[in-house]
Formats: sequence, structure tokens, C-alpha cells
Amino acid sequence: MADAHRLVVIGGDAAGMSAAAQARRLRPAAELEIVVLEQDGEVSYSACGIPYWVGGQVGGRHELIARTPAEFAAREITVQTGTRVVGIDLDAGHVVAGGGARFGYDHLVVGTGGRPSRPPIPGLDAPGVFGVHRLDDGAAVRAAIDAGARRGLVLGGGYIGLEMAEALQRRGLEVTVVLADPLPMQLLDADMGERVCAGMRGMGMAVHTDQAVREVLLDAAGRACGVRTDEGSYDADLVVLGLGMGPEVTLAAEAGLALGTTGAIDVDHSQRCRDHPEVFAAGDCAQTFSRITGEAAHVALGTHANKQGRVAGSVIGGRPARFPGVLGTALTKVGDLEIARTGLCTTQAEEAGFGYRAETIEATTRAGYFPGAEDMAVKLISERGSGRLLGAQVVGGPGSGKRIDVLATAIWAGMTAEDLAGSDLSYAPPFSPVYDPVAVAARAVSRTEQG
Amino acid sequence: MADAHRLVVIGGDAAGMSAAAQARRLRPAAELEIVVLEQDGEVSYSACGIPYWVGGQVGGRHELIARTPAEFAAREITVQTGTRVVGIDLDAGHVVAGGGARFGYDHLVVGTGGRPSRPPIPGLDAPGVFGVHRLDDGAAVRAAIDAGARRGLVLGGGYIGLEMAEALQRRGLEVTVVLADPLPMQLLDADMGERVCAGMRGMGMAVHTDQAVREVLLDAAGRACGVRTDEGSYDADLVVLGLGMGPEVTLAAEAGLALGTTGAIDVDHSQRCRDHPEVFAAGDCAQTFSRITGEAAHVALGTHANKQGRVAGSVIGGRPARFPGVLGTALTKVGDLEIARTGLCTTQAEEAGFGYRAETIEATTRAGYFPGAEDMAVKLISERGSGRLLGAQVVGGPGSGKRIDVLATAIWAGMTAEDLAGSDLSYAPPFSPVYDPVAVAARAVSRTEQG
Repeated sequence: MADAHRLVVIGGDAAGMSAAAQARRLRPAAELEIVVLEQDGEVSYSACGIPYWVGGQVGGRHELIARTPAEFAAREITVQTGTRVVGIDLDAGHVVAGGGARFGYDHLVVGTGGRPSRPPIPGLDAPGVFGVHRLDDGAAVRAAIDAGARRGLVLGGGYIGLEMAEALQRRGLEVTVVLADPLPMQLLDADMGERVCAGMRGMGMAVHTDQAVREVLLDAAGRACGVRTDEGSYDADLVVLGLGMGPEVTLAAEAGLALGTTGAIDVDHSQRCRDHPEVFAAGDCAQTFSRITGEAAHVALGTHANKQGRVAGSVIGGRPARFPGVLGTALTKVGDLEIARTGLCTTQAEEAGFGYRAETIEATTRAGYFPGAEDMAVKLISERGSGRLLGAQVVGGPGSGKRIDVLATAIWAGMTAEDLAGSDLSYAPPFSPVYDPVAVAARAVSRTEQG
Repeated sequence: MADAHRLVVIGGDAAGMSAAAQARRLRPAAELEIVVLEQDGEVSYSACGIPYWVGGQVGGRHELIARTPAEFAAREITVQTGTRVVGIDLDAGHVVAGGGARFGYDHLVVGTGGRPSRPPIPGLDAPGVFGVHRLDDGAAVRAAIDAGARRGLVLGGGYIGLEMAEALQRRGLEVTVVLADPLPMQLLDADMGERVCAGMRGMGMAVHTDQAVREVLLDAAGRACGVRTDEGSYDADLVVLGLGMGPEVTLAAEAGLALGTTGAIDVDHSQRCRDHPEVFAAGDCAQTFSRITGEAAHVALGTHANKQGRVAGSVIGGRPARFPGVLGTALTKVGDLEIARTGLCTTQAEEAGFGYRAETIEATTRAGYFPGAEDMAVKLISERGSGRLLGAQVVGGPGSGKRIDVLATAIWAGMTAEDLAGSDLSYAPPFSPVYDPVAVAARAVSRTEQG
């Protein structure tokens, strides 16, 4: 028997472990050896759960770990934690680990993940400034709170910023959010972002918008004690960074793998690097594309990482597979306010050259007379003329957010607003008004087409 | 100026009032007079809310009334409550009310609604046996509970039966449910119906299946005190009928309007009676059709009534409109168990001649580590070969039920299971696992196609 082929995976989180698991499903160990190299001590953890661990809703670090190296070992996937890859030799077909060890591969999956944005602000590296990327980051924030931090300052108003703001408030901290943008959640239109901003202020958070941070202020011990913007200074016992996520491509770029226009690793629809068909990239380090416009995109989300990893693992396992693109669906909450979006916002629709119509409606999550009915707003964007749905945004009380999936599915399928307005959505008083808010929004935007 | 045309509407609930309101939006009173004749004292009420009023979650009868006759009067729609129509003269173009008054029409909308099924069981008309159709029915059940009823017996395991069982239990009654079918929720497949049955028993309800009721037992005063089946007798202080709903077509049939194969009034896709283009029927009295098979169907639900009424009103108002058919989407809950379905169940798929595949998966409503994550099961049915989705069923804890809308939208759009598995659904730990249960089910059934 010939030697087994070897798949090496760099990075043991969503993309890498999905690739490994899918390849193993399709090819037994006798045919394919699988080695995963992970620089940290844990694999397959839910970074998305860190804010809820900090906030105390999730009991322990171990709960965020979906599978351990031992569980992968039972499936004949070798996971080497604490193994940092320092180089990829594409010509030789091996990767080099920190101590100099070489791992030859027949197939390589690059799953190096994302890199939190760290603008060149003086003091950003000081103690007391925390990221939200790895489990150790979460542990560090928890330790700072346990040590007595009373005032938390969050930089950035994206979903990580919002979730960390909620977490700090749940732990009893006074919360200040400072953002360079005019509103939180920049992938919402302004009318919807204003609802989020008002909701956060209603929760008692101080939200300072349109203020780029110029400096992290340090106390005598060199520890962060606040930030300074052009408009003022804000004290804090801890500072959390939620400034977005770029692709971690250092290794890939050094090896000579091509990067795309977004700065992420350029791959085809099967997650294959174009000039190196034996190399795949998946997850936050890889470029992807918009399902609607076909244009290159970089969207750092666990859902895509899982699916892209699975695509790579399928192809490596011998089964053709394609990643079908992204809509940019995102869902989060701050307190009881749920926030979701999918497809193109009006700015993106304009940039993509669409003539569009947009309508925002207000409704309730349940029948108006039913206890727990909460306000919710739905914004829909459709292509002028065809009526095809291009984008959707939802902001509202409990029960609002997951409705984005109906809209994402309608956009995915190329439905028009009129199609959706006439579709057979469910109704019962504890769950929705007789016309679901989604249908009300669809009717509103389709009516603008009818004139 | 010529006299205004007159639209007469028989029945002032969802279908009739939607027709009236939509016609009025399109044509002013100078052009179109609108008269609604309603036999009861109220119009535009939410019959679907009655169980929640009985159960005490909705405070008062008035909360279930969406709009009063005075509100319609302000929109120049005349509503005559307490006016029972006893005849339609299609040749003369008028309807006759109880006292002999005639109302001539240019257009007529028949919105006579549904008729609760009342099988010929001795004693079914006795005091102590209650329907759940009109607000007066709800008031009567409430009065019986207030008068001291302690044991409630529900006949039937459809959504009205389940909702009333929950309502009675909320009010402190011992609840027994007796059904002729082998399982509750006959529009679910057996594996899903069993989950419902187990859930009800887990709530402490006595559920007796496969037992047709032969007789309502009466006490010395002639009041219902239980029921007798072939297998036993069950005591009760009140008996609630939840045996389903047929179309109320007495007036239509007597007038000579054609009925369809389902026994409901036969209409075209614009809700027009085929031989009488000036007459429309909408809502629970009208036949409709399956979006999937094109075949005639009768589905008594407020959502369709509203939409069909609006279609009729649009056409009468001069704007072409078509009702696009139904999937049979339905959503309910019993206690914390949410139950939803759409499209074809396996029996229906077989009857319609489809080769199909079906898969049931188990997942959780939120990330498994997030507080409040509850079990949920999703069953998907797809066409063999094409992979097109045909039907879906969901049973699970809070947050499960409304996910049926994603599946209904996918079926509406003609998506395959593979399309749905790859689509961009939302994820955040408080809302779903990283693969939403909907996507997990889609992948499971699409995998059966791949072999």
C-alpha cells in the first residue's frame, strides 16, 4: 500500500477543524493522515461566546470549547496545540513550526483566522487594554473585573463592542462606548443605527460617537486609565477593543500566496488558492464574495468559517464542493435590543450601482394584545424595477432578531418583495401579529413599486 | 354624476373587513359605497386570541377587537352589526337580511367564515359544552371557570385543542384531552406528533388517543359532566370542542354559488366565484389551493382570510390581484412546547405522488452552552432527485416555532435542501448554534440525495 497522503491544517478553530473533520468523514486514516497545528492551547472554541462568559451568562471557559484534541484524536485527527507555524514552503510542500520542526503536506489548509484591528494609537498595548479574540482575552477581562474594575470603556460600536458593553454592564460596571463612526453598527443604515444608539443610551450606557481615539491614557503605573479623543477624555478601569477584525495573512503573504483586493487570501469558490491548487484557505483569513454582487468581500464570522472549512475538507476528501457566497447576515443584541442585518444596506446598494427602494416599518413581535409584545422595526431594500430584495435590517425587542433569517432566505432565493409579501408565513398571537412584521415590510416596499 | 357602485360584504371578520378596507383604499366613497353586514355584535376580532383570553394572558374581550364599527365608519365603511343575512339573490343582485331588508349590490364579498365541526354525538348541544369560535364562546368558557369548574376536557388535538388545553391548565383546571386520532396535530408526521403528545403528558395533561367520543355524559340537570368513548368514560366540569373547522357555506350553497371539491366556495385565483364574476368569496368559507401541488385545499386560518380579503378588495377597487396559494403553514404552542409545520407532510407528499426523502434532526434553540438553550427537532421533506423542499415540521422549546418561516420561505421560493444548507443564516450564541437547526436539517436531508 502506498503511504497515506497527508493533510496539514494551520489553525485549529472553526475553519481548520471543520476542514479536518469533513476530510476525515470522506477519507479514512489509512488514506489520509490529518495533522492540525494550533499555536494556542485550545482548539475548536467559540470566540463568539467570550462576551457571554465575561458577562457571567456562561459559567466557565470549558463550556466554550466544542471539542478537545482528545475528541479529535478519537476520530484519528492529530491536533498539536502549542505549535506555532512560522513558515510555509510552497515549493517544498512543508510548513515549519517554531522549534524548526517540518511538516510535509500533500494538501494544506490555511486557517489562520482573523486579526483584531489595532490602529496606531499610543498606549494601545498598555496593560488594562483588552482584546476579545482568544479565550485568554476573555479570562483577562474577567480577572480585571474580579480585581475591582468599576468603569469599563469599549472602543468601537460593532457587534463585539455591543456585546462587550452588555457584558460589562451585566457585571455591574459603568459602561462608556466611544466610536469613531457617527453611529454604532455601521452595516446598518443610519435610521436603524439611531435606534441602536438610542437603545444603548436607554440602558444607561454613555455612547460617544464621531470621536476617534487619539491616545490611551496611562496611570503612574503605566496602566490604562482612560482614553482621549479630540473632544474629551473618558476615565476607565479597563478598556476593551472592539474595532473590527481583519484577516491574519502574515504567514500566507510571506509564503507567496496571493492576497485578494480585500487583503485576505485569494481563493476560488472551492477555497483553493488560485496558483497553488494543493493549498486551501478558509475562514477569517480568506477572501470570499457577495452572493448578490459577486464582488470580493471579507466577512469574519464563524458561520462562514465553518462552511468554508467544510468545503475545503470536502474537496480534499474527493467530493466536489463550492462555497456559495455570503449575504453579510449578522445578528447580535445589546441588552434586550436585538439587531440583525443581511444583504446590502443602502450605501452598499448605491456603491454596487443598484437603483433601489427602501422602506422601514414598525410593528410588534407578537400580537399587540399579547403579553411581551415588543416594538420592532424592519427595513427592506429592493431593486427598483424588478422589486428583487437586496437587503434587510431588523432592530427590536426579544423575538425580532432571528426574523432576519426569513429575509436572508428570501434574498438568497432571489425573491421579490411582492413574493415575500404574499408568502405563507406563520401566525399565532404569542408569536406575531396576523401579518408578520417581515411581511408588512415586504408589502410596504413592494407598494412603492406599484406607485 | 352616476350613483356610486355598492359593495356589500357578508361577514365582518378578517376576510370581509380586509376586503372592505382594501376596496376603500383604492376607491373613494363617492365612487364606491361599502356596506358590511355582520350577524354578531362585533367585527374584526381575533378569534385566534380566544384561548389566551380564556387562559388569562389577555386581559379583556375588548383587547381582541382590532377595530370597531365606529373606526370603520370614519373610513366611510358602513358596518351593520346584528344583521344576519338569510339569502342571496344572485339574479336580482341583492342580499336579504333577517328582518326582510334588502341590500342591492354591484359587487358582493362572501366572508361567512368557518363552521366548527360538530359530529353527531349525543349530548354535544348540552350546556357545559363549549365551542371556541366567537368571542361569546370565550366569554362562556371563562364564566364556567369562574363558576368553579375544576376539570376541563378538550375534544380534539389540533391547534385549537392544544391552545385550549393550555388555557384551562393555566387557569388551574385538571386537563384531559381526548382525540379520535392516534396522535395530536394530525398535520405532523407521527414521529413529530409523538413529541407533542409526550410534551403534553409531561405537562401533566391526560391525553387519550385513538378514542372517538360516542356520547357526552349529562348530569341530572342535563349539563355535560364528561364523555364516553369505546374505551372508557372521562369526567369533566366543562367540555371544549376543538374538532376542526369546515367552511360555512349554507348561504352560498342555497344561492347557487358553486362549491369546490373541498366543500368550500369555489373561486378563481382572484377570489372570484367562477360563474358570478361580481361575487367574491374569501377566508374560511372559500376554497383555496396548494402552492406546491396546485390542488384544491381548504385551510381555515386568519392569515389567508386577511390576504384573500385584500385580493378581493383590490380587484373590486380596480387593481388586479391574485392570491398565490397556501403552503399550509401553521404555528402553535402548548405550554413551552412550540409546534409548527409548513408544506407537505410525508402522507401528503405520498398522496401527491412525490418520491421524497425525510430527515429529522435534533438540535438546540441557542448555542448549547447559552442559558435557555432548549431542545428542538426539525423534520424536512424533500423531493427525491431534485432535492426541492416539500415540507417542514418543527417541535421544540421557546424560540423553535418561528423558525418555520425560514422553511416556508425556502419552500415558497422553490429552494432545494442543498440551497438552504448553504444559505447565509444568522448566528449569535443567544440565538442559535453556529449552524442553525434549520440548516442542520437541510444538510441532513440533502446528504441523503448525495448518497
